[in-house]
Amino acid sequence: MAIELYWGSGSPFAWRVMLALEVKKLAYESKLLEFSKNEHKTPAYLQLNPRGKVPTLKDGDFVIYESIAIMAYLDRKYPEPPLFGKTPEEAGLIWRTISECESYLVSAGDKVVRPVFFGKGLEKVDEIQQAAQVIRQELQSIDARLAQTNWLAGGQISAADITVFPVIQLLLRAASKEAAQPFHLGLMPLAQTYPNIARWARQIETLPNYQRTYPPHWR
Amino acid sequence: MAIELYWGSGSPFAWRVMLALEVKKLAYESKLLEFSKNEHKTPAYLQLNPRGKVPTLKDGDFVIYESIAIMAYLDRKYPEPPLFGKTPEEAGLIWRTISECESYLVSAGDKVVRPVFFGKGLEKVDEIQQAAQVIRQELQSIDARLAQTNWLAGGQISAADITVFPVIQLLLRAASKEAAQPFHLGLMPLAQTYPNIARWARQIETLPNYQRTYPPHWR
Repeated sequence: MAIELYWGSGSPFAWRVMLALEVKKLAYESKLLEFSKNEHKTPAYLQLNPRGKVPTLKDGDFVIYESIAIMAYLDRKYPEPPLFGKTPEEAGLIWRTISECESYLVSAGDKVVRPVFFGKGLEKVDEIQQAAQVIRQELQSIDARLAQTNWLAGGQISAADITVFPVIQLLLRAASKEAAQPFHLGLMPLAQTYPNIARWARQIETLPNYQRTYPPHWR
Repeated sequence: MAIELYWGSGSPFAWRVMLALEVKKLAYESKLLEFSKNEHKTPAYLQLNPRGKVPTLKDGDFVIYESIAIMAYLDRKYPEPPLFGKTPEEAGLIWRTISECESYLVSAGDKVVRPVFFGKGLEKVDEIQQAAQVIRQELQSIDARLAQTNWLAGGQISAADITVFPVIQLLLRAASKEAAQPFHLGLMPLAQTYPNIARWARQIETLPNYQRTYPPHWR
């Protein structure tokens, strides 16, 4: 049975899984849910994922959600090429990068992205500025690592790159919106602010089938 | 060379790694850092972990931090017994549980634990009540799963149990503090509120050497 992927346009979490599937060259059936029609909250979808979030992956009878768990599952089920490193030390560094992304970058990102996209909470200027400061620190640290290496951990693309990339793309998209301008987030233009991240992002953007993973409503 | 673990009393993240080391029966040298003396912010420690957080593990020359990354590293380096499942499906479920713990329970927990322990932000009553509601939902869902099985994923203790357990312990400790009483968090007594979690916690508490992992200043 084919792999089915339930996803939504613009979800960085769904984007991760699409990139992982492409890197592993796994064919899948795309199940695009329209957030605007609440297709991620239908009874049928809530049966698959009670949280009503994306992504959810169905592989035969097995259903799994939470983007990082899906990547970990895919890597155990379809080991080549490995997404979690070739050695214990590489695996540790990849997982460290993922944890740091989730604990620091995603949570700070949320405090900027949500107000900018949905217009709610834009008056919490201090909170947004504090979050922007955390974002810049995290990007600075990622940029410094990428000054030394092509990929975030190990000699090839890994789950670390795949986890971080869509989050940075979402932050850049938020930073480009009119509602973000008064905050002077200081993230763009990427080639000037974080040149190593910019170079690394171009590497990912030239992966085969990258375009297939790009959020359709961002075009 | 021996494994060295840098930890602090009461950190649920450090506690995870101590439990993982015990389950894998790995000997280690304990490096207890006193938060009150800022021993996690000394130049020597910041060399190991620039974030100045615990835990950090040193295995020979290899240094790794972020609790979940440490567990993933240990599991690759010392595979028996496996902490991340015997099958791809078990691995997926374990990682899903870990992601859910980090994304929902830890972040909501933070909004209750910090004000209660440090007295700062106790006036944000609505935020604390909302977080408490999320905590109760997550615990309800964990309790329902544990009604069916002895361990959160698979037939034996895994990284899922080890990740969640110290977080719940910290929440219960916060709930028992005087500063928490006005909020009526509704978490205790555990045996009445979440009886399956209570039974599961007792299983962990009877693991060999569990007492060695228990936060010394909680006794």
